[in-house]
Amino acid sequence: MERTKFQLDESQIPSTWYNIAADLPGAPLAPALNPATGAPLTRDEMGATMPEPIIDQELSTERDIEIPEPVRQLYGQWRPSPLYRARRLEQALGTPAKIYYKYEGVAPSGSHKPNTGIPQAYYNKQAGKTGLITETGAGQWGSATALSAALFGLTAKVFMVKVSFQQKPYRRALMESYGAECVPSPSPETAVGRAILAKHPDSPGSLGIATSEALETAATDPSLGYVLGSAANHVLLHQTVIGQEALLQMELAGDYPDIIVGCSGGGSNLAGLTFPFIGAQLRGGPAVRVLAVEPAACPTLTRGSIAYDYADTGRLGPLFRMHTLGHEFMPPPVHAGGLRAHGIGPLVSRAVEDKLIEPIAVGQTGCFEAGVQFARTEGILPAPESTHAIRGAIDEALKCKAEGVGKTILFGLSGHGHFDLVAYDKYFAGTLEDDVVNEEALDLAAASIPRLDGAGA
Amino acid sequence: MERTKFQLDESQIPSTWYNIAADLPGAPLAPALNPATGAPLTRDEMGATMPEPIIDQELSTERDIEIPEPVRQLYGQWRPSPLYRARRLEQALGTPAKIYYKYEGVAPSGSHKPNTGIPQAYYNKQAGKTGLITETGAGQWGSATALSAALFGLTAKVFMVKVSFQQKPYRRALMESYGAECVPSPSPETAVGRAILAKHPDSPGSLGIATSEALETAATDPSLGYVLGSAANHVLLHQTVIGQEALLQMELAGDYPDIIVGCSGGGSNLAGLTFPFIGAQLRGGPAVRVLAVEPAACPTLTRGSIAYDYADTGRLGPLFRMHTLGHEFMPPPVHAGGLRAHGIGPLVSRAVEDKLIEPIAVGQTGCFEAGVQFARTEGILPAPESTHAIRGAIDEALKCKAEGVGKTILFGLSGHGHFDLVAYDKYFAGTLEDDVVNEEALDLAAASIPRLDGAGA
Repeated sequence: MERTKFQLDESQIPSTWYNIAADLPGAPLAPALNPATGAPLTRDEMGATMPEPIIDQELSTERDIEIPEPVRQLYGQWRPSPLYRARRLEQALGTPAKIYYKYEGVAPSGSHKPNTGIPQAYYNKQAGKTGLITETGAGQWGSATALSAALFGLTAKVFMVKVSFQQKPYRRALMESYGAECVPSPSPETAVGRAILAKHPDSPGSLGIATSEALETAATDPSLGYVLGSAANHVLLHQTVIGQEALLQMELAGDYPDIIVGCSGGGSNLAGLTFPFIGAQLRGGPAVRVLAVEPAACPTLTRGSIAYDYADTGRLGPLFRMHTLGHEFMPPPVHAGGLRAHGIGPLVSRAVEDKLIEPIAVGQTGCFEAGVQFARTEGILPAPESTHAIRGAIDEALKCKAEGVGKTILFGLSGHGHFDLVAYDKYFAGTLEDDVVNEEALDLAAASIPRLDGAGA
Repeated sequence: MERTKFQLDESQIPSTWYNIAADLPGAPLAPALNPATGAPLTRDEMGATMPEPIIDQELSTERDIEIPEPVRQLYGQWRPSPLYRARRLEQALGTPAKIYYKYEGVAPSGSHKPNTGIPQAYYNKQAGKTGLITETGAGQWGSATALSAALFGLTAKVFMVKVSFQQKPYRRALMESYGAECVPSPSPETAVGRAILAKHPDSPGSLGIATSEALETAATDPSLGYVLGSAANHVLLHQTVIGQEALLQMELAGDYPDIIVGCSGGGSNLAGLTFPFIGAQLRGGPAVRVLAVEPAACPTLTRGSIAYDYADTGRLGPLFRMHTLGHEFMPPPVHAGGLRAHGIGPLVSRAVEDKLIEPIAVGQTGCFEAGVQFARTEGILPAPESTHAIRGAIDEALKCKAEGVGKTILFGLSGHGHFDLVAYDKYFAGTLEDDVVNEEALDLAAASIPRLDGAGA
């Protein structure tokens, strides 16, 4: 049988997470700052929202961090996830390139998000929390939180960006099916929400606002653990199960990627797949070209500044040194909701700065086109976020065709698109608008980046 | 690690389908009849809609029928599907029973249907057809046909029951994403459709009507292959990959089911899981109690007659000897659309007659309750069809608890519920109505069963 699926067995689920901070050359990662003092965030300050083991992970420079057995057990429900060779897509493209993809849509909530939802729920339960609180944009992270909370017998409350709450009632219904409460944000439940509603009663919300609402709620109720779906060091760490498995699977395939492509929003899927390969390269292994594909409408890596900025609009959280469009950036409503983030995880930002990752920006129409070609050849309907990686991979494969070279391309298929059929419907109806870059909005948002004396240098 | 997932490797995908006709005791299965002559359907007559290898399978009494390599290769994309021990559900129920489930939602269209869609597309392509034509109720089969057609480079046209077409736009969008054309039925495209629309312009449609439309279209265009999603012998045959894998997986678990539970509509998921176990029993293996759980609103096995009847409302197809409510039965719109069938596969019907399968009927409210309990403990949101099997399994596990006996229960989780969140939403809002059995409608429909001299005896 011609092999197209490279499947590991349960014993090959990684037993440790991979921490790229151990391998980054040069200065250590710039620390998060307390905006009031401008000083690096202390463990005590972090303890307000994070249990001890997560603080350890956030700050650690150890390479391998043990995955607790109950977490590994739950990973086993759908991990190791499959890695496929996209033979029918290659054929349709007529490319000499070999295309592989690592598929995370096999998780029960349909994306890679439970890879970090499960451990965050576990550590919060260990720390005596009885519930989880978080924010969500398109709903992938909210669903993963709802699922993870249910599996550990915790409550879950999710502030969901209002426009998505209204456009995606089925994401909300999925969260409720898992027993979670889902609140449209901005909401009258928090001071941040009330202030925004007073000024803009019709505010469609944003991930930054929802984050502020979740942080404020967590701060007022010590029984709740605040969990987050992307960007933070520990979140990226948890996602490295993806790339570690992919390393073994490429070995099974008797191959190794020349190019790895991931979609890029907060950075967790991208980092999860690529950091273990980048780490191998940094330790003397084969060189890989890593592409981060972001939406042209939210060009954090390709147009953002590298500076200290807030992750949340309400400025309740700390400052992170990262690529940012400014915390007041309101991304246009492109359908890859999971990629509409004004900032990106500091570790990804650093890897881009160090030229370990190469960012590109693409429009959503071309992404849906790639997604449909993928669905019709490989059989899996991709999430709009994932179509960005597919677009990047197809473009590289077509370059190989033009140049007559047979490179090996691996991309991350972060989730399925079963909850995103409204977007596909629009695409087929020809009513899907392509990304428009609003220069004025970019300039205005950039002005919201705080000016810190030297700290951002 | 405490084992909860029993995963086979790709080499353990069955290489043959299992044909229960080889092991049924007593008289051979009653043949399908030509309604015009009352005589058994000839191979020539079957050839009007079926390629040769499918006719062979339809009539075969050989036990093991080889799976073509290209089909097995495509099965490998998601098969072997996982079998799980439902440890957290067991704990939540406080039952001494052990509960296992075989999960078919890992297929790209989210249910077991591609197990037969793939081989039917393969054989039709081999026979020179350039497109597939079929009908669908809730859309699981239509999606599987669209997927299977795309993988073999065939066109696909799907007549979808109008009420589902309107209620489930995302199922339609999924089919379109795979490149299929989806037409609401009754439609003005066929004589059957036009006749019904003339009498009932607002007809919500039914599976029987959609089947007539598809059959009529196939009869007028020899380039199209008619494919079907349930009931037929060859469809049930193709689904036996499920039960064959489950036999190996139960062995891996060091266990064997005392009770197997499946949901029951046309019978394909039920047969797929249970026939290999029933066959083992018929050949002297361990005895199993097999439960078929159907919706109380469409009580084909528990209230139907065993008689020759049409599978389609327009009476274009042959007569099958089966449990039937009458081909004019219009099932109430319960959300398990895949189980709203007036008749059931002749092989399942025969197994029920031979007391190898025990049917029960349950209301949908209790099914959704079971589905939500399952989602919150096991993490997978089940399709409404699948919740019928869960309800049956939970009830048996609770009986075990009451009696203090630790039986082993295996049930079939035929698909995920990601396309059915409207129904879950209604359940949570308390607006989901429970099944009402309309005695008058049952009587009226029963009168539509044709009276054949002796043929039904």
